[in-house]
Amino acid sequence: MTNEGKPEVAAAGEPAPTKEPPETGALLRRFAAEAAHMLDWLAQFGSGANADEGVTRLLYTPAWQQAQDALAERLAGCGLAVSYDDVGNLYARLDGAREREVVATGSHIDTVVRGGRYDGAYGIVAGALALAYLKEAYGQPERTLQLVSFAEEEGSRFPLAFWGSGSVTGRYQARHAPDAADADGVSLAAAMHEAGFGQGRYAAPPAAADWSAFVELHIEQGSVLEREGAAIGIVQGIVGQRRFGFEVSGEANHAGTTPMSYRRDALCGAAEMIVAIRDAALAYGDPTVATVGRLEASPGTVNVVPGRASFTLDVRHPDGAALEAFCGELMTTLERIAASNGLTVSVSLWTEAAPVRMNGRLTEALDRICRTRGLVCRHMYSGAGHDSQLLAPVCPTAMVFVPSRGGISHSPAEYTNAEDLAAGIVVLADLLYALAYKGETP
Amino acid sequence: MTNEGKPEVAAAGEPAPTKEPPETGALLRRFAAEAAHMLDWLAQFGSGANADEGVTRLLYTPAWQQAQDALAERLAGCGLAVSYDDVGNLYARLDGAREREVVATGSHIDTVVRGGRYDGAYGIVAGALALAYLKEAYGQPERTLQLVSFAEEEGSRFPLAFWGSGSVTGRYQARHAPDAADADGVSLAAAMHEAGFGQGRYAAPPAAADWSAFVELHIEQGSVLEREGAAIGIVQGIVGQRRFGFEVSGEANHAGTTPMSYRRDALCGAAEMIVAIRDAALAYGDPTVATVGRLEASPGTVNVVPGRASFTLDVRHPDGAALEAFCGELMTTLERIAASNGLTVSVSLWTEAAPVRMNGRLTEALDRICRTRGLVCRHMYSGAGHDSQLLAPVCPTAMVFVPSRGGISHSPAEYTNAEDLAAGIVVLADLLYALAYKGETP
Repeated sequence: MTNEGKPEVAAAGEPAPTKEPPETGALLRRFAAEAAHMLDWLAQFGSGANADEGVTRLLYTPAWQQAQDALAERLAGCGLAVSYDDVGNLYARLDGAREREVVATGSHIDTVVRGGRYDGAYGIVAGALALAYLKEAYGQPERTLQLVSFAEEEGSRFPLAFWGSGSVTGRYQARHAPDAADADGVSLAAAMHEAGFGQGRYAAPPAAADWSAFVELHIEQGSVLEREGAAIGIVQGIVGQRRFGFEVSGEANHAGTTPMSYRRDALCGAAEMIVAIRDAALAYGDPTVATVGRLEASPGTVNVVPGRASFTLDVRHPDGAALEAFCGELMTTLERIAASNGLTVSVSLWTEAAPVRMNGRLTEALDRICRTRGLVCRHMYSGAGHDSQLLAPVCPTAMVFVPSRGGISHSPAEYTNAEDLAAGIVVLADLLYALAYKGETP
Repeated sequence: MTNEGKPEVAAAGEPAPTKEPPETGALLRRFAAEAAHMLDWLAQFGSGANADEGVTRLLYTPAWQQAQDALAERLAGCGLAVSYDDVGNLYARLDGAREREVVATGSHIDTVVRGGRYDGAYGIVAGALALAYLKEAYGQPERTLQLVSFAEEEGSRFPLAFWGSGSVTGRYQARHAPDAADADGVSLAAAMHEAGFGQGRYAAPPAAADWSAFVELHIEQGSVLEREGAAIGIVQGIVGQRRFGFEVSGEANHAGTTPMSYRRDALCGAAEMIVAIRDAALAYGDPTVATVGRLEASPGTVNVVPGRASFTLDVRHPDGAALEAFCGELMTTLERIAASNGLTVSVSLWTEAAPVRMNGRLTEALDRICRTRGLVCRHMYSGAGHDSQLLAPVCPTAMVFVPSRGGISHSPAEYTNAEDLAAGIVVLADLLYALAYKGETP
């Protein structure tokens, strides 16, 4: 998915790069080998005995702790200044001449249960390799380069996500852990204490609002790049999201003795609604997505007309006003369907997250880098949540995707080939170079 | 729902009845009081401590046994000759001059779990009251009158229905009980032995093929009569039925990162199918009914596009060829929907029952009786299964419905008012009179 052989013709009609970049082919080969090796190494922490068990590193568990500690040791070995903050976020710094101007990159090393080796981990490995390469090739930067391994992003152990990035962006206060408990009833605060954090032993989480920039490299977790043959996804924004629960009520009746015209079949009504939701999302057009993931009909017996049906709806769009308008129109449609079937429908909004936009100057810089490197790139929105969505509102933030084979994620089958991994690291290194060494300002 | 005040104008243009019937009003009042009283009495066997527990009389349980024994005692007290057969069907005979010509009526006293007081029981109570009335009013009949309380119809304890009527019609061999077990693992044979049957202590079940006629009175278990203001439903036939299981397969995907046009959403496909099934049944017209009672989407998570969906389908129609054609067309439609959504669908036929028709001369006789009595009647099909569907292929069979309030059945809320109960018994008594005393031949 790279045009390695002809970097000079990245995009027709563009001006030639003003500075000869490091030779792309050699850099790709270097990062391909290093990334594959380091991802193997990191996956040892939390891997099940069999490959199909994947990797499980839940916040504050021994597997998570071992991974963070091993990473700290490895980063220190590269000559980076390593530290934890009081929630367990891990930092590795390469101080710049303007030490307090921080250009940060990072992601997370926690996983879902039986997850893959790339989600989050790739951004950490990429940051480590990019910083090591930049230090080796260019020495001290102008601005400080900082890799951050956020303590938690997935929300897999406790019913809250973004505990790591949320602690540097003001969503969460490290000293006031939300009242959340894991499946065994262990509170977030207790688990944090048990892991040695939350006791003032480490510095308070820094304020990301002071950072000059934050860049996150991540696998796509979708199949758009793979299907379109692009190596790099330049994320324009992260979608806003609303989740709803619907309850459709009609009348349960005997399947044999109730003529079709007498029925108030809640499942038939829900089915019409599901089709209407899909058709509305298609009509609204990309990048609108609307998903009914769960549906239950009651009483749920082969010979009874369902009197009730409940289903979930997940709607995402990168534009807040469009999301609002789409949901509003949809509710009108669903109520009309209910009424025309003699049913009632009630809806509850479960969760709501506003969309965020990535920094425009950073995405432009990424465009230039891809052209210069001859990497086929695509602008896209992230349909999944990432640490970047917390960072974007407080500091200039960019996000880069690499392809996920088959779009598979949160699974042991998650995979990105070494060439694609390397292309992403080249782009990350180039952007960090531009920001930290050349002093470009987002 | 009767035209009690003006029986002489039952139907405009009809000839006046040739014989003055017993005064309808008085007979209705008699049967209304007797039926309400006897149904109360019968409901004591198997009633829960609270009204909302309904009535539970499962085959060969103590509640069932007590009800059958109490019924035997009560029928013997009316001067009827009472006997069991070897599966536990209970008979009460009023021998005619032509003793071996048997005009039978009956239903069942077993119930579903937490069932109502009318389903099955009404036909038994009605038969008992009709025989007692005919004996009292007219003495010995020409043909033998026989009430039969079938041991089992519902299939609620063992996974087979019609054990009682099936044993007199050749479906089941009493001495070779099907290999079925209840929820506690007790076999049908063991339960039958425990209740004192299946050991040759009683006569083998008689062959219903020898009966001159069989008439069943039953609550409608639907709301057609109530909605149309009819007192009597004259059943033309019992629908044939097919039950299917469908499996729709697509691809599970991330709800945020998978554009709508990339999806192979099994639930969306199933929803289109459910709407198409309903629309096909509506287009095919009454009395076609098609019901999707159960649906499951997998993985069933709010933020995952469902990769699989399974649902049940129950189709009923009184005409076998129409049922066959409808199902055939429907399968083509569902496969087309699957293909157009990039899905596959597999179908399995779970059960199949052929439709049966009631005896034409008996339904004509019922028409005449309703006209004579001034009872508003309606021809209809039974969408539910009944003992009559086993009897109809082996002897002339008729079936009569009375209204069910709200169409509710298999529930403690099952209810038919005393006037409607009485109207049905008048019709039953008149038909039994015509067959057994006047010697009419179906």
